[in-house]
Amino acid sequence: MTMYDIIKHKRDGGVLSDQQIRKVIEGYTRGEIPDYQMSALLMAIFYKGMTFEETASLTYAIRDSGDVMDLSSIAGVKVDKHSSGGVGDKTTLVVAPIVASLGAKVAKMSGRGLGHTGGTVDKLESIPGFRTSLSGEEFFDVVRRVGVAVVGQSGDLAPADKKLYALRDVTATVDSKPLIVSSIMGKKLAGGADGIVLDVKTGSGSFMKTVEDAKELAAMMVAIGHTAGKRMVALVTDMDIPLGHAVGNSLEVVEAIATLKGQGPQDLTDVCLELAANMLFVAGRGEIDACRALAKEALHSGQALNTLAAMVKAQGGDPAYIYDTELFAKATHARDVLAPRSGYVVKVDAEEYGLAALSLGAGRLRKEDAIDPSSGLIIHVKPGEYVQAGQPLVTMHTNRPIFLADAEERLLAATEIADDNITRRPLVLDRIVV
Amino acid sequence: MTMYDIIKHKRDGGVLSDQQIRKVIEGYTRGEIPDYQMSALLMAIFYKGMTFEETASLTYAIRDSGDVMDLSSIAGVKVDKHSSGGVGDKTTLVVAPIVASLGAKVAKMSGRGLGHTGGTVDKLESIPGFRTSLSGEEFFDVVRRVGVAVVGQSGDLAPADKKLYALRDVTATVDSKPLIVSSIMGKKLAGGADGIVLDVKTGSGSFMKTVEDAKELAAMMVAIGHTAGKRMVALVTDMDIPLGHAVGNSLEVVEAIATLKGQGPQDLTDVCLELAANMLFVAGRGEIDACRALAKEALHSGQALNTLAAMVKAQGGDPAYIYDTELFAKATHARDVLAPRSGYVVKVDAEEYGLAALSLGAGRLRKEDAIDPSSGLIIHVKPGEYVQAGQPLVTMHTNRPIFLADAEERLLAATEIADDNITRRPLVLDRIVV
Repeated sequence: MTMYDIIKHKRDGGVLSDQQIRKVIEGYTRGEIPDYQMSALLMAIFYKGMTFEETASLTYAIRDSGDVMDLSSIAGVKVDKHSSGGVGDKTTLVVAPIVASLGAKVAKMSGRGLGHTGGTVDKLESIPGFRTSLSGEEFFDVVRRVGVAVVGQSGDLAPADKKLYALRDVTATVDSKPLIVSSIMGKKLAGGADGIVLDVKTGSGSFMKTVEDAKELAAMMVAIGHTAGKRMVALVTDMDIPLGHAVGNSLEVVEAIATLKGQGPQDLTDVCLELAANMLFVAGRGEIDACRALAKEALHSGQALNTLAAMVKAQGGDPAYIYDTELFAKATHARDVLAPRSGYVVKVDAEEYGLAALSLGAGRLRKEDAIDPSSGLIIHVKPGEYVQAGQPLVTMHTNRPIFLADAEERLLAATEIADDNITRRPLVLDRIVV
Repeated sequence: MTMYDIIKHKRDGGVLSDQQIRKVIEGYTRGEIPDYQMSALLMAIFYKGMTFEETASLTYAIRDSGDVMDLSSIAGVKVDKHSSGGVGDKTTLVVAPIVASLGAKVAKMSGRGLGHTGGTVDKLESIPGFRTSLSGEEFFDVVRRVGVAVVGQSGDLAPADKKLYALRDVTATVDSKPLIVSSIMGKKLAGGADGIVLDVKTGSGSFMKTVEDAKELAAMMVAIGHTAGKRMVALVTDMDIPLGHAVGNSLEVVEAIATLKGQGPQDLTDVCLELAANMLFVAGRGEIDACRALAKEALHSGQALNTLAAMVKAQGGDPAYIYDTELFAKATHARDVLAPRSGYVVKVDAEEYGLAALSLGAGRLRKEDAIDPSSGLIIHVKPGEYVQAGQPLVTMHTNRPIFLADAEERLLAATEIADDNITRRPLVLDRIVV
C-alpha cells in the first residue's frame, strides 16, 4: 500500500496493519512522507478512530522512531510518571523526591511548557544555579547518587511524536484518543522506566471532558504499557480547579517545598501522596495501602525534602533555597483581586486563571519567549470556600504592572460566587491497574 | 478566524462563511496557507460536507483566484461544455463544430489528459500542423471567423483549482461532492461562456456510482452556474461502457469525423446530438426539440464537418485529413483479440479498456510523457451484442508490440460473455435545466 492507499483505507473506516503503521511513522520521521499527506491521515483518524491494536502499533512505532533510553546501568527499579497537565500542576516537584527518598529511581526528562506557566524544568530553573541540561553521564550519575534527576528533553527521544504533535497542533487533530494515547505512551516507553504512573485529568479544562472519556483513555494507556512489559497504574483526577494555591514558576516551587514540609494545601498534598504511593506500587514496594503509608512517612519525616535539596545541589542549584524559601526573588508588583460580593466560590475557570498568569509573565506563547520566574497568582479562595465581599480572592504577582488591570478583569470574570455552596467531587476519581 | 479555527469549525460540522472560504482560497493560492492545513480541511470537508451556500462560495472563490476570461469582444452567444470524462469520450470534437456551424460561439480551453488517452488537445494534435497553443488574440480571432477554436489551457485560469486538485489527488480527498462541484464549476465560470452544458457521467467507472448521486451533483452545479448568471443544462449519462468504438487519439479523431459525416456509431451520435442540442438551447436558439432538429440538420448537411475543417485550417492543421481520414498515420502493429466463446457481451470494464489503451501508448501517466497518436483500440462488439467464438472482440493498434500480450490479457479479463443478454439502460439518463 502506498501512503495514498493508506489514507484512503483509513478514510473509509479500514483497519491499518502494524506494518503499514510502522511504514507511515518511519517514512514521516525520515521526511519521505510529506506533512500534507500525514495531516489528511490524522484527520481521517480523528473521524474513524483506531482499534486497540492499531493504537498500540502507532505507540510502538513512535517509541521506536528514535533512541529508547537504556536505564539498565542504574541499579534498582526505575519509575516515571506522566501528568496530562493542568494549571498549577507542580506534582513532579513533590512526588519525585518522595519516591526517590524511598529507593525507587526517577530519571526524569521533562518538557518546557507552552501556555499558562512553564513546565517542570522551567519551574526548577527559578532556583539559582540549577542546571536542567546535563550530559547523559551526569544525568545517570545524579540518579545513581541521589535517586532522582530532572532534566530537559534532549537527544532523539520519539522524534516522530515531536513532528506529529507540531502538525496536529496546527491542523485541529489534537483531541483524538488514539493520537493522544500514542503520543503520551510512545514518549513514556522511550523513556525506559520499568513502571509508569499516569495522571489523566478530566474536566472542562482538559481534553477529556467526562470521567468516562478519561477512564477509557487511561485504560488504553495502561493496557498498551502493560503489553510493552511495564508495570502500569493510571489515576483519573479532577482538573476543574487549579491544584494548590500557586500558579507561576517560583511560586509553585515554594508551594511544592511547603508540601514536602507537610505544610502544603490539602488537595495538592493528597494528590501527591496518591501519585507517590502508586509509583512505589509499580516499583514493587508492596500493596497500595503499604505504599501510601511509606509515602506519608517520607513526607512527614523530612527525608523527601532532603532528597529534593540533594538533587538541587547535584544539579548545580543552591540548596539553601529549599530550606529557606524567603530567598526566592519576588516580583516587583503584587495586587489583590477582591471579592465583588459575599458568598461561596462555586466555580473557577482553571483555563482562564492560567491565561491570567500567562499574561502576568508566568508562561510563554512561543518557544523562544522568556519566562518571568517570579510572576503568577496566589489563589486564596477555592471552590467550595466562603468569601466576604472585599476580601482578597487572588493575589497577582508581576514585573509587568501594565498587565494587572486586564488580568484582574479576566480573573473576576472567571470566578463565580453564589449563595448556595456546591459539593465538590473527590480529586482522585478512579484508579486503573494492570 | 485563523486557518486553525476554520479547520476546527468544519471538523466539528460547522458552516463556513463566504468570507472565511474566500480567505482560505486566497491564502492558499498565494502560498500563505500551507498544504498540510489545506489537506486537513479537505479531509474534514470530505466527512462533513458543505451546504449549497458554502459550495457556491468555494466555487466563486476558485473562479476568482485567477483571470476570468472576458469574451465580450466576440459577437454572439458563447457556449461551453464540460464532460466529467470517460474512456473514448470524443464528444467535443463532434459537438463544438455542430453548434459553431449554427452560429453559437465556442472558445474552448481544454486540458491535456492524464490516464488512458490524451485530452481533446492531444487528440487534435494528431492532425499534422494543428497548433493548440495560440496567443489570446489569435484564439479570439479564430472563434470570431470560424465560430470555434480549441486550445490548450493557458494563462492563469483558476490557479486555486490546479493547486487544490494536485493536493486532493494525493490525499484521498477527490471524491467529495462539494469539492468536485467547485472544481468543475470554478474553472468553467472562469472560462467566461454565457451558457454551459454539463455532461455528468455515472456508472462503475466514475465518481458518481449511482444515478441519484450524479443527479445531485448535476443539480448543484446547475444551480451554482445559474446563480452566477449563466444559462445551464446538465445531462446525466451512462459511462459504464466506452462511447463509440475507438479509444486512442487519432483513432478517436477519425471516429469523430465519421460521426460528423453521419456515419458514426449510434451511441456516440446520439449523445453528441443531445449535447449539441442542449448547447444550442442554452445559447437561446429555441425549445429543446427545435434545437435537436437544428443539430441533426447541421450534421446531415455536412456544414458541421466543414466547420471542423475550417477550424483545423485556421489553427494551422491540414484540412485534407478531415475529408480523407485514410491520410492519418497508422500504428505499425494491429492485432485482434478474439472471443474465447460464443455469447452475448454483457459487460466490459471501461476503466480496464482504458488502461489497455494506455499501455499500448495512447495515454500518459506523467505530464512529461509523450503520447503515441496512432495507438489504441477499436472495439468491435459492445455490451448487448452477440459474438461468435473466434470472432474479433477488439483490435489493438500500437507501435510497441511487446505490450500486446499484456493488453490482450487485460482486455479478455475485462470482457464478460454470457448466454443470456442484458437490457441496457439509455445513454442519457436525465436532463436538468434551470
